[in-house]
Amino acid sequence: MNSTKIAFIGTGLMGLPMARNLLRAGYPLTAYNRTRSKAEPLQKDGAKLASSPSEAAKDAQIIISIVSDTPDVEQVLTGENGVIRTAKPGSIVIDMSTISPSATRIIAQNLEARGVEMLDAPVSGGDTGAIAGTLSIMVGGKKEILDQSMPILKTMGKTITYCGGHGMGQMTKLCNQVAISLHMLAASEAIAFAEKAGLDPSLMVQAVGSGAAGSWVINNLGTKMVKHDFAPGFMVRLLQKDLRICLATASEIGASLPGASLAHQLYNSIEAHGRGDEGTQSLIALLEEMANIEIEKRTE
Amino acid sequence: MNSTKIAFIGTGLMGLPMARNLLRAGYPLTAYNRTRSKAEPLQKDGAKLASSPSEAAKDAQIIISIVSDTPDVEQVLTGENGVIRTAKPGSIVIDMSTISPSATRIIAQNLEARGVEMLDAPVSGGDTGAIAGTLSIMVGGKKEILDQSMPILKTMGKTITYCGGHGMGQMTKLCNQVAISLHMLAASEAIAFAEKAGLDPSLMVQAVGSGAAGSWVINNLGTKMVKHDFAPGFMVRLLQKDLRICLATASEIGASLPGASLAHQLYNSIEAHGRGDEGTQSLIALLEEMANIEIEKRTE
Repeated sequence: MNSTKIAFIGTGLMGLPMARNLLRAGYPLTAYNRTRSKAEPLQKDGAKLASSPSEAAKDAQIIISIVSDTPDVEQVLTGENGVIRTAKPGSIVIDMSTISPSATRIIAQNLEARGVEMLDAPVSGGDTGAIAGTLSIMVGGKKEILDQSMPILKTMGKTITYCGGHGMGQMTKLCNQVAISLHMLAASEAIAFAEKAGLDPSLMVQAVGSGAAGSWVINNLGTKMVKHDFAPGFMVRLLQKDLRICLATASEIGASLPGASLAHQLYNSIEAHGRGDEGTQSLIALLEEMANIEIEKRTE
Repeated sequence: MNSTKIAFIGTGLMGLPMARNLLRAGYPLTAYNRTRSKAEPLQKDGAKLASSPSEAAKDAQIIISIVSDTPDVEQVLTGENGVIRTAKPGSIVIDMSTISPSATRIIAQNLEARGVEMLDAPVSGGDTGAIAGTLSIMVGGKKEILDQSMPILKTMGKTITYCGGHGMGQMTKLCNQVAISLHMLAASEAIAFAEKAGLDPSLMVQAVGSGAAGSWVINNLGTKMVKHDFAPGFMVRLLQKDLRICLATASEIGASLPGASLAHQLYNSIEAHGRGDEGTQSLIALLEEMANIEIEKRTE
């Protein structure tokens, strides 16, 4: 039994299995989720449930948050019933959501004024990585606070990279999302082009994916694109949220993202077609529609 | 000693080592190159030199061409002193250049009218793959002609994919180039964003490249981008030639390539800055310039 008390805020698709891995490692854990029913499954793993972020945080040494967007993090950490109301000096907030780097810096300052430390520690690896405890975790904040938190992060992730001061974990995650959005566009354009040209698109994916044109996306999602298997590993609406942060941050720091900007606009069309809760590989449907390709049903 | 006589047309960066691998495998080979001096090194490997494509082709069973662009292939195969003037009925032309799929179909028809078979067999894998004999070869034409040619292709490449009728090898190669151009943009945007944000870009490349945002490009060229090592594995001006074929073919078949089109336009700027003979990773220089990032010298 580990003695470090953890508060865990946000038990969604990612948070629930991450919290479960902490419970299984023996950490006493109090969970909070806006929709309480989504946190209840953790009770049989030994979690207590709290009715507010401030209640969850009051006895905790480590407070983990993983919620949807910047305003959600602001609310649960520094809002009315937020962590900041009760968190003890010396405790550490680890925000594993993907949110604005500049907002992260402000939240870290506000917490620091109360003696509470903060790391930004967004993740990649999807729900499968969360379940397996093999997430990649990109960390910003003070190095010594990361060192203290390492055993807990290792319970949830495999590759833990220290990226720099507050917000730098978020910046690294944004670079990740810029690349992913363009890799989705690359795979979608190549596959729709192949289909319109009369090629066997699966054969093209195989021929192209093994060489210099290969990517994780085309090798892992290319066949799903061809078969129109749009079950979400990562949802369109969450990528769109991340791309909005990328583009806003690009404005703040003075960087240009012509390609990621295009991908974001094309995904707007995917959302306009009611595909926001589908996996990001559904971008192929737009490129096919643009090429006037009629797809009957693909799954056999 | 193999008895199949080969004519080899185009002994540039790719063609020279490919011809050398055929000579080493024991094939009698007659080489032609527009600039004769570039073919001369093959003489000490046992090659004869010809002074025109038609002279090279006159006794050959297999005629291989690998030249720069569609008009070059038209000239050496069906032009005034082209292969078509002397090639024997039953001989096989294997065009390993990357050119227009629709022009390929017309050339194949013209050759077929003289009883000469044709395969389109563009390659990927760069000069290192050409030297090692490990190219990926994407083949269009008649399946039985590919079967006959297989021993010769295996001397130059490792992965040989039959893609369909005439032009389908070229179509597959174009899909490859669409994906590569967008992967270059993805890596360039992510790296320039990281630099402007104050991240260590090499650390970002490492953190991002191992997961779902990974690509061959970011993992193999990311560090070169960061260091401004622009030595060409594949030259900008050749990628641009390929993208022009992609965009023209997209118009012909009715497919949309919004991302590859953007990449092509951005590479126009790279060429306008005199970087056409550099490697395609030099796209990073434009994204850095757009973000007003001053790069001193990177290589140490």
